[in-house]
Amino acid sequence: MSGALTDIAADKSVRAVVIAANGPAFSAGHDLKELTGRRGDADKGRAYFTQIMTMCSTMMQQIVNLPQPTVAAVQGVATAAGCQLVASCDLAVASAAAKFATPGVDIGLFCSTPMVALSRNVTRKHAMEMLLTGDPVSAEDALRFGLINRVVAVGAERKEAIALAQYVAEKSAHTVKIGKEGFYRQAEMTLAEAYRTVTQIMVDNLLSADAEEGIGAFIEKRDPKWEDR
Amino acid sequence: MSGALTDIAADKSVRAVVIAANGPAFSAGHDLKELTGRRGDADKGRAYFTQIMTMCSTMMQQIVNLPQPTVAAVQGVATAAGCQLVASCDLAVASAAAKFATPGVDIGLFCSTPMVALSRNVTRKHAMEMLLTGDPVSAEDALRFGLINRVVAVGAERKEAIALAQYVAEKSAHTVKIGKEGFYRQAEMTLAEAYRTVTQIMVDNLLSADAEEGIGAFIEKRDPKWEDR
Amino acid sequence: MSGALTDIAADKSVRAVVIAANGPAFSAGHDLKELTGRRGDADKGRAYFTQIMTMCSTMMQQIVNLPQPTVAAVQGVATAAGCQLVASCDLAVASAAAKFATPGVDIGLFCSTPMVALSRNVTRKHAMEMLLTGDPVSAEDALRFGLINRVVAVGAERKEAIALAQYVAEKSAHTVKIGKEGFYRQAEMTLAEAYRTVTQIMVDNLLSADAEEGIGAFIEKRDPKWEDR
Repeated sequence: MSGALTDIAADKSVRAVVIAANGPAFSAGHDLKELTGRRGDADKGRAYFTQIMTMCSTMMQQIVNLPQPTVAAVQGVATAAGCQLVASCDLAVASAAAKFATPGVDIGLFCSTPMVALSRNVTRKHAMEMLLTGDPVSAEDALRFGLINRVVAVGAERKEAIALAQYVAEKSAHTVKIGKEGFYRQAEMTLAEAYRTVTQIMVDNLLSADAEEGIGAFIEKRDPKWEDR
Repeated sequence: MSGALTDIAADKSVRAVVIAANGPAFSAGHDLKELTGRRGDADKGRAYFTQIMTMCSTMMQQIVNLPQPTVAAVQGVATAAGCQLVASCDLAVASAAAKFATPGVDIGLFCSTPMVALSRNVTRKHAMEMLLTGDPVSAEDALRFGLINRVVAVGAERKEAIALAQYVAEKSAHTVKIGKEGFYRQAEMTLAEAYRTVTQIMVDNLLSADAEEGIGAFIEKRDPKWEDR
Repeated sequence: MSGALTDIAADKSVRAVVIAANGPAFSAGHDLKELTGRRGDADKGRAYFTQIMTMCSTMMQQIVNLPQPTVAAVQGVATAAGCQLVASCDLAVASAAAKFATPGVDIGLFCSTPMVALSRNVTRKHAMEMLLTGDPVSAEDALRFGLINRVVAVGAERKEAIALAQYVAEKSAHTVKIGKEGFYRQAEMTLAEAYRTVTQIMVDNLLSADAEEGIGAFIEKRDPKWEDR
């Protein structure tokens, strides 16, 4: 997945990404047998587990740092790193039958890395309830918490996620890229710092070919033709 | 508007501010023709656009830093910097017919500065949906997202916003000022740092004339008489 | 209360904490007569008030830093530091008759320290409405804001809070401790910093006895037996 994201990041023909799954689950996170498979190593598996966890955290940050917008299409359970995957996407569409959980606490392995993404999507009490109880949350509750954007009829989630991705893919790829990048950068700044940084981003944006085209098209009441199209 | 805010900040007789608009729109943000009017300059308008954007970002921060509380009264569409204006106010009342959008993505000019304010009001997935799709959000959804405080009947929004502003204006101006200032300062701090800073603010507050009067009035079961009244 | 929390933090037999109150109010915060009782001191009570406020802020942070999870059981009004107490707990269950308010503004003493906890639980406009108006918020609205996790029938709140605490208490105490600690630490970091820190926490967690037991039990489809049990 990390490799695919690296390829996508460099591929200008890809304008939006839908992350979906086949089978009953969206993602149940790590394979527990893989995680514990190297307990017999001299270091009890520390090096191996560090490697796996670092790869996972890197992949999640690749999604956040991807120039293209990402939409999760959640058809089944999204637990642990699977729930983190949903939280890491820019947008998420879920089936009414989808469930979300961070159940690591039940197996003695707190969903610590998932909580990094989860706690940046929902308020503290909601995140803590999921993390401390480990209990599944319905699609309706996930919508109320702000973890997902839309709940659709069972079976419609992939079609809806693709439609949403296509809708965003019609926009200027350059504009979406600088917007998404700026969003996550400024989120970590003070207000004054954010305004300083983002004002500069917006000036550069206005001077881009796509803004010239887009504003011109708007004023002339015609459809814009983006550069990378 | 920036000049008006500077005057208001220095005017102790002003105890709360309502930001409202005449006409069908609350605010559609920047004038696109103004933004692009200096493309013929030697620098393609960079200096001019930087100046306009900086003025706009400064004005939004003046609202946040204003000693008086601000209430947006949103009767129509609030888009781009107009949506940012609503997000920058301390409180917001909207007509059931109001709409909120950050549609810059549709003209190749991402709503980057609006997102600074928006993303400090609503959760990530909600902000991202508005920013990436550009689609309008209803007053009901804006209420659910936390972007506004109240939805009222069409035509009642200004009266309700004024009533809310007057309600807060009855409080001690000194107390509201230090409270508002402290709110935005501590929001950018760690928990320990916030408690250290705010504990000191509260000690100073308790020693103020208005706290002495307010607590006395409460204990004596009478109405307080604030200093700047 | 601070002393009790210090004892609890060191007592491995305590696995979860419910904070509840007898009488009609959950907590109305500081005793105003105590706060103002030393106005006759040479420093007008500054040293004394600083001491009281520091003790209060310390106690609230003890709850956040407590290794055990805390659940507020709110049966009546939770105002000022009482509302802060609810916000400082990891989880909160409230009676349908409970009310939440930060009414300091009405007595000239802004709820500045309560806002540190409140503003880390709810969105800005919600926090500002409570802080600037001082008005009580119903349990239903507090649930919508994300300040509490559950609203239950009047009189059922303590039983439900205890049930929730017991449910979490069945988990591995070691796992809950590192999870809770990590949660509040990473909340103050950038995304990259949070992932670096928490990935290491998770590696250590996996190598703990409780994770070995928990994962083993899960694979073998039996109940886990935690170390500190």
